[in-house]
Amino acid sequence: MIQPGPVFLPKGFKFSAVKAGIKASGKPDLALIVAEPTTTAAALFTKNLIVAAPVEVGRTSLARSSGRLQAVIVNSGNANCATGHAGIRDCRRVCGETARFLKLRPAEVFPSSTGIIGVPLPVEKITAQLKPLISSAGASLEHLRQFAEAILTTDSKPKLASVHLGSGRGAITGIAKGSGMIHPQLATTLVYLLTDVVATPAELKTALRKSCDDSFNTISIDGDTSTNDTVLLLASGVSGIRLRSVRKEFDRALLEVCRSLAEQIVADGEGVQHVIRLRIDRAKNRGEALQIARTISHSLLVKTAWAGADPNWGRILAAVGRSGVPVHPNKISIYIGNQMVCRGAVARSFDKNVAHEELSKPECRVTVRLGSGKASLEFLTTDLSAEYVRVNAEYST
Amino acid sequence: MIQPGPVFLPKGFKFSAVKAGIKASGKPDLALIVAEPTTTAAALFTKNLIVAAPVEVGRTSLARSSGRLQAVIVNSGNANCATGHAGIRDCRRVCGETARFLKLRPAEVFPSSTGIIGVPLPVEKITAQLKPLISSAGASLEHLRQFAEAILTTDSKPKLASVHLGSGRGAITGIAKGSGMIHPQLATTLVYLLTDVVATPAELKTALRKSCDDSFNTISIDGDTSTNDTVLLLASGVSGIRLRSVRKEFDRALLEVCRSLAEQIVADGEGVQHVIRLRIDRAKNRGEALQIARTISHSLLVKTAWAGADPNWGRILAAVGRSGVPVHPNKISIYIGNQMVCRGAVARSFDKNVAHEELSKPECRVTVRLGSGKASLEFLTTDLSAEYVRVNAEYST
Repeated sequence: MIQPGPVFLPKGFKFSAVKAGIKASGKPDLALIVAEPTTTAAALFTKNLIVAAPVEVGRTSLARSSGRLQAVIVNSGNANCATGHAGIRDCRRVCGETARFLKLRPAEVFPSSTGIIGVPLPVEKITAQLKPLISSAGASLEHLRQFAEAILTTDSKPKLASVHLGSGRGAITGIAKGSGMIHPQLATTLVYLLTDVVATPAELKTALRKSCDDSFNTISIDGDTSTNDTVLLLASGVSGIRLRSVRKEFDRALLEVCRSLAEQIVADGEGVQHVIRLRIDRAKNRGEALQIARTISHSLLVKTAWAGADPNWGRILAAVGRSGVPVHPNKISIYIGNQMVCRGAVARSFDKNVAHEELSKPECRVTVRLGSGKASLEFLTTDLSAEYVRVNAEYST
Repeated sequence: MIQPGPVFLPKGFKFSAVKAGIKASGKPDLALIVAEPTTTAAALFTKNLIVAAPVEVGRTSLARSSGRLQAVIVNSGNANCATGHAGIRDCRRVCGETARFLKLRPAEVFPSSTGIIGVPLPVEKITAQLKPLISSAGASLEHLRQFAEAILTTDSKPKLASVHLGSGRGAITGIAKGSGMIHPQLATTLVYLLTDVVATPAELKTALRKSCDDSFNTISIDGDTSTNDTVLLLASGVSGIRLRSVRKEFDRALLEVCRSLAEQIVADGEGVQHVIRLRIDRAKNRGEALQIARTISHSLLVKTAWAGADPNWGRILAAVGRSGVPVHPNKISIYIGNQMVCRGAVARSFDKNVAHEELSKPECRVTVRLGSGKASLEFLTTDLSAEYVRVNAEYST
């Protein structure tokens, strides 16, 4: 696993967080990013056809402002989803009030919500806290950490990742939340990526798509795609460094930040005991590899076997067989760690204790080799523990 | 739920079961049906691309014998899957030896296996018990029950269902097993349907397809399609009643038997606390209704909410949204029992206690109304409890 290193502060951003009383726990649940007027933006959203109000409003705002944003307002504890016209109105009101305090246009304020679906947004609780929220914004690491804390729901810890582009060339810092309803089709839960380079919204969009494909789009905790998934990339331009002059370093750094955040999300999955680094090798193409990885990572029988560190590879093989991909059974091999446990879809004798040990690690490796082509993919997923069931059987009641 | 009524004995079949030592528990694990020489047959098999040896051998035998069978040999405790050429050879050996004792052609003996994947079939243990197995066959209800017991794996009870076609017109009796890896694409786990009418294999195949579509193909416990799924319909012809002279009654009776067995399988699902009768209404067509029902029934977040009898309908709505079906959110309503909890994909105020009470029942009703057309579908599924995780994290180790 990529170890999250020190967190850098990209220039041009301030952060803050307050307790608005949305979360029953009384923890901070309203968070703000204020960005320089030079800031450009690009975002990716959930592919779920049921989308939350902030996703609709945020998408429209980005179009209206031609990819220019100066604030991000996030609440946790309520998804503002399945709330109809009232939900849209509430979301616009939060953006409008924030804009008024900051002297911006409403379309320059980007909204996000995360939490329970189908409960009206407590908009008065939010607007009542906007003034202290805005007045307490600051550019220190401590302020950034407060923001990262306030956007969490069932997460056990904040998720941060940073990469410097090299001496005097700016930095990328990412903040994410998410530990359930994780099976992104495009983006995952809430992710904010901040950089101080100078970039057009189109340049940001291109960079964002590429980096998401190999990070947030190749993880799954429970196979459920959220209605609120949003990845937002903001470039303040304050460093004066043009993205196009550091494109290679920028792309590499953005991918590294996204991967680190994706790994932190999976590792902090609800009830997760083991992170599984699932490799699909020798697939015909990336699409087929992804379809197989998702089927395996969505199989209850596979995930519960992993919970028991049980090298029951037959369940993995059965999942490959029902994935919908036209596989050739006699070409399929499965590895647990470095051990081949099945070849040509047939059992091989292997050391069960060694396989059990590998699967007992906090992070373990499982590889499925298809023998269909040259594409490969690494996918991060988790086991399914009784604790996941407990967390999710008790969420709303 | 259809209450399983009294079990009838269709004429022309004998049953037996013995302990061959395949199951570690020492319970009966080898079972036999012997049928009259007049018997015709049709079968449906799993759509998983990874198929067990008995599925391959059984399919070939049915073709070779032109749909004529005189024996069914079933072992539990070992799936004989992912066992390669040796698995095929072992399966043929079991059929061959059974045929030799019964003085039949090997293609007239139909094999089934269920249990763990990837472990060589203990063929000597099986052949050593064929003689006592065959010599103890009898046509009593007690013999039938012994057969039904011996084919079980993690099931907690045998599954039987019977329907009489009317006075002097024959009967249909079904025997099934299955409580995990239940998400049939065509058939489910092991099901034996016995009748004493006179029918061609083609007539049986037609009847079987129709009845499976609305029974075994509309249930799901865990979303995993087994590698061994087999539904076998045998007609002994001993009653002298031609199927074509009682087609309507036969089709209705076969559907009733299949539905009862499907319901018994779901109710006996691993760790199941609640059976959910999920209705998809006003869909564009049956295919879309089925796709949505399967996505809902496969959602970990929905299933865990059901485990807590939690009326968290937002998770159902989110599953509809990611199902891949082009739904119109503003036309979607969701009901828990008789209460509408969401209309036009928007929250409605409803009595949470009443909804919680409905979801606390052993069998509860959830309806999703799409507003896209006139098709509807009833699907049976289950909650996901910590007990399911426990059962499946401990299966092979």
